[in-house]
Amino acid sequence: MSRPQSPEPALNVQGASSIGLGDEDAADGTQHSHRMLSFSDALLSIIATVMILPVTHTDISPEQEFDKSIQKLLATRIAVYLMTFLIVTVAWAAHTRLFQVVGKIDDTLALLNLACMMTITFLPFTFSLMVTFPDVPLGIFLFCMCVIAIGAVQALIVGYAFHFPHLLNPQIQRSAHRALYKRHILRIIFHGPALCFVAAGFSLFFYPASYLLMATVIFLPYVSKAASWCRGRLVGPREPPAHSLEFFTFDLHGPLSKERVEAFSDGVYAIVATLLILDICEDNVPDPKDVREKFSGSLVAALSESGPHFLAYFGSFATVGLLWFAHHSLFLHVRKATQPMGLLNTLSLAFVGGLPLAYQQTSAFARQPHDELERVRVSCAIIFFASIFQFAIWTTALLQEGETLQPSARFGGQEHAFMFAKLALYPCASLLAFASTCILTRFSTAIFHLMQIAVPFAFLLLRLLVRLALAILRALPRLALRPAPTRPAPGGPRDDTCSPLLPAPC
Amino acid sequence: MSRPQSPEPALNVQGASSIGLGDEDAADGTQHSHRMLSFSDALLSIIATVMILPVTHTDISPEQEFDKSIQKLLATRIAVYLMTFLIVTVAWAAHTRLFQVVGKIDDTLALLNLACMMTITFLPFTFSLMVTFPDVPLGIFLFCMCVIAIGAVQALIVGYAFHFPHLLNPQIQRSAHRALYKRHILRIIFHGPALCFVAAGFSLFFYPASYLLMATVIFLPYVSKAASWCRGRLVGPREPPAHSLEFFTFDLHGPLSKERVEAFSDGVYAIVATLLILDICEDNVPDPKDVREKFSGSLVAALSESGPHFLAYFGSFATVGLLWFAHHSLFLHVRKATQPMGLLNTLSLAFVGGLPLAYQQTSAFARQPHDELERVRVSCAIIFFASIFQFAIWTTALLQEGETLQPSARFGGQEHAFMFAKLALYPCASLLAFASTCILTRFSTAIFHLMQIAVPFAFLLLRLLVRLALAILRALPRLALRPAPTRPAPGGPRDDTCSPLLPAPC
Repeated sequence: MSRPQSPEPALNVQGASSIGLGDEDAADGTQHSHRMLSFSDALLSIIATVMILPVTHTDISPEQEFDKSIQKLLATRIAVYLMTFLIVTVAWAAHTRLFQVVGKIDDTLALLNLACMMTITFLPFTFSLMVTFPDVPLGIFLFCMCVIAIGAVQALIVGYAFHFPHLLNPQIQRSAHRALYKRHILRIIFHGPALCFVAAGFSLFFYPASYLLMATVIFLPYVSKAASWCRGRLVGPREPPAHSLEFFTFDLHGPLSKERVEAFSDGVYAIVATLLILDICEDNVPDPKDVREKFSGSLVAALSESGPHFLAYFGSFATVGLLWFAHHSLFLHVRKATQPMGLLNTLSLAFVGGLPLAYQQTSAFARQPHDELERVRVSCAIIFFASIFQFAIWTTALLQEGETLQPSARFGGQEHAFMFAKLALYPCASLLAFASTCILTRFSTAIFHLMQIAVPFAFLLLRLLVRLALAILRALPRLALRPAPTRPAPGGPRDDTCSPLLPAPC
Repeated sequence: MSRPQSPEPALNVQGASSIGLGDEDAADGTQHSHRMLSFSDALLSIIATVMILPVTHTDISPEQEFDKSIQKLLATRIAVYLMTFLIVTVAWAAHTRLFQVVGKIDDTLALLNLACMMTITFLPFTFSLMVTFPDVPLGIFLFCMCVIAIGAVQALIVGYAFHFPHLLNPQIQRSAHRALYKRHILRIIFHGPALCFVAAGFSLFFYPASYLLMATVIFLPYVSKAASWCRGRLVGPREPPAHSLEFFTFDLHGPLSKERVEAFSDGVYAIVATLLILDICEDNVPDPKDVREKFSGSLVAALSESGPHFLAYFGSFATVGLLWFAHHSLFLHVRKATQPMGLLNTLSLAFVGGLPLAYQQTSAFARQPHDELERVRVSCAIIFFASIFQFAIWTTALLQEGETLQPSARFGGQEHAFMFAKLALYPCASLLAFASTCILTRFSTAIFHLMQIAVPFAFLLLRLLVRLALAILRALPRLALRPAPTRPAPGGPRDDTCSPLLPAPC
């Protein structure tokens, strides 16, 4: 956390392309890795999120109760989704660190990276196998093979990059301890595959041990991150070892590149927003035969039957969009994503990925009105957790605000109060909706979705209210005859937005 | 095309964030639009591509022949996909131009942009309605309403940005003709909605006219682009009007921002690569009951039945990945994406989006062996068109190489020959495969997919071969006792890759 150079690789890439270095570098077969990394981020975020589809496609027939067996089926599918999400984020974090070491790429590295991506995209299938056949060890065996293959490709990438040192991050390239770095990096890379090798062995004769080891592979980075962070808060930061690790960014505990955190998050939000319309297009186009027979040829009548679905779609899109908006606003003020912030971001994204489930839960109402309350509760819970973890990112950032936040968002900054209100809006709204389901005996979904659609206006209203409140707070001391603060009295949101820039452009 | 400043807005954004301006700008409520644009690119590329899913999910039962009715159904679904793809790319291009005018955003603009995205994501549903009920005008009416809504939101964005001029692109902000610009931009934005308004009117009493007008909205930008390009090549570039348009980037015929073309393409490639595994996870996890009854509990036996699917998956992923790789290599050498290049890129991406169809076509073999040849032909055709349009981008860029390409990729440049070989590989390979289906009476899918998986190695081999050929070409004159060229004799691929950079890092 105290290593100030880690965001640099990403910054170098951007800086280089904008000051024209790109022109020269393309000439010798090496390439800036910027675009390859964005592509990898897009792929990984989609893979992480797309496994929510089998969950939402769980077929709950109308005559069935929302009973134990369905709950169990749903629970196992949700487990697959969460496992995929967690392992893909672990792989993504490892990928991020790897390409903080490897600063440039050439054709061979680009192809190796594609091979790595291909293996990662195969992981969800192994999870599907594991969950469908929990007592057949084939799924876990395949999973372990994939992890070993990924490790092998990553080791190849590291070996290749150290063999052609001009591909490395300039800091490592110039270092005298290059061989030491290489060994250290390879050791970190081989952690997961080694555990999986043992697990693959166990899967052949005693598979429960394999599950245990697999859980270690998935959760170890999170547990170790959380533990080291807690230790950091309790005991104070560990003394870094003297010589080699001084400028060392390949470390499970260093901050992640902010650009890549943003790109990965964008991918998750984009795919979640899109899964919704895919469901609509596949399920809610009425069958021509049905229209002829049931609705005597009236398409409008047929569509109005799935009217709640459309309302749910717009409500859910508004929710996803606004959660993205809050995330975007938050990261606009973030300078550096430390490891606890990255962890909280992952947790928030895991719940965002669950939003299609919320959509399906609430849009299935028309069929099962007696579960209405329970389903609105599930939706509220998902939205609440997605947004509260965003809020937690902000709180965590405030703990080290000097390092992690822009000046305007720190305590007392211009945007601080508004940021607070923005991030608190969704947790409060979802809690409120949850509470109202406990009080009311019946809750209309239409109201729930209209509430979702109304939230954007709440954001705009919020801006006005916060400005107003700040203006009043500033005006109060003046009314009490204290000297006015240095800023001129803000006249309203319009003046306030425009004034800092007006001198230049107007 | 002769306006050198158009890639600047995107460049400014990157440049600013890398030299630390971001710190200052976040303070006054305005924000750099970079991340919002990436998010929009991701959303739009996913929406454009995801409509291939209903095509691939067309249920062809084993006992059915691949007959006329199925072909018709498939054709209509492909039509929906292509229409969606084209309209979304039109919307994307309009969005790109819009945010070349609006240089910065604030919260209100971000929310308006989300509203715009929400309306665009609803378009595929209207197409589904149109195709399922071609003689009910409701689909076209909804489509027109969406286009009008999008136009209204875009007009709001323009109005808002011109009301707070510090949000505008600095060139327009400083211009004396700002009001003129605003009128001009609004006029361009209202083209589509105006046509759609008329179409919506017609849909109420004479819907075929609506379809005609809708086709105009979708194809007009393409036709007008192609026409103006042809005219440009035949007559020479048009004289730009004297006063106001000198620095004017909001023009249907100016070059697109290279960053956004890359981001949009990345999104398409990423989602196509991911759709494949989604199908695998949903369709190829065997049913526990089946395994117990048909395969006497052996999961391996059950899985090996869908073995061809896995081979097809890896083959298709390799194809998508390598087409991305070729695109990435190409755009590495591209400085500026002119309008014909953008058009060719769109066409290439439309066929890339069709690759899941190729996957489904070839992986369905096991069920219908008698159609094998025809299906391999469809796959080859899709791959051929996707890659030949990439090749065409390159040829088009070469026509104006001084403007569009980096020096190393121009005629006689270091990378020219290799670039040529890289882009020619897929068209040649797919033509070869197509030709062999015409000669052979039976063609094994396994061979086809193994060929697909082997192509990455062909890329690496190609590099060696091109280097070797160049080395021989250079050595020949020396053997004929002519003075050697200025460069030292290349010793092999390794020396060649490293040498230009060695003096500095090694």
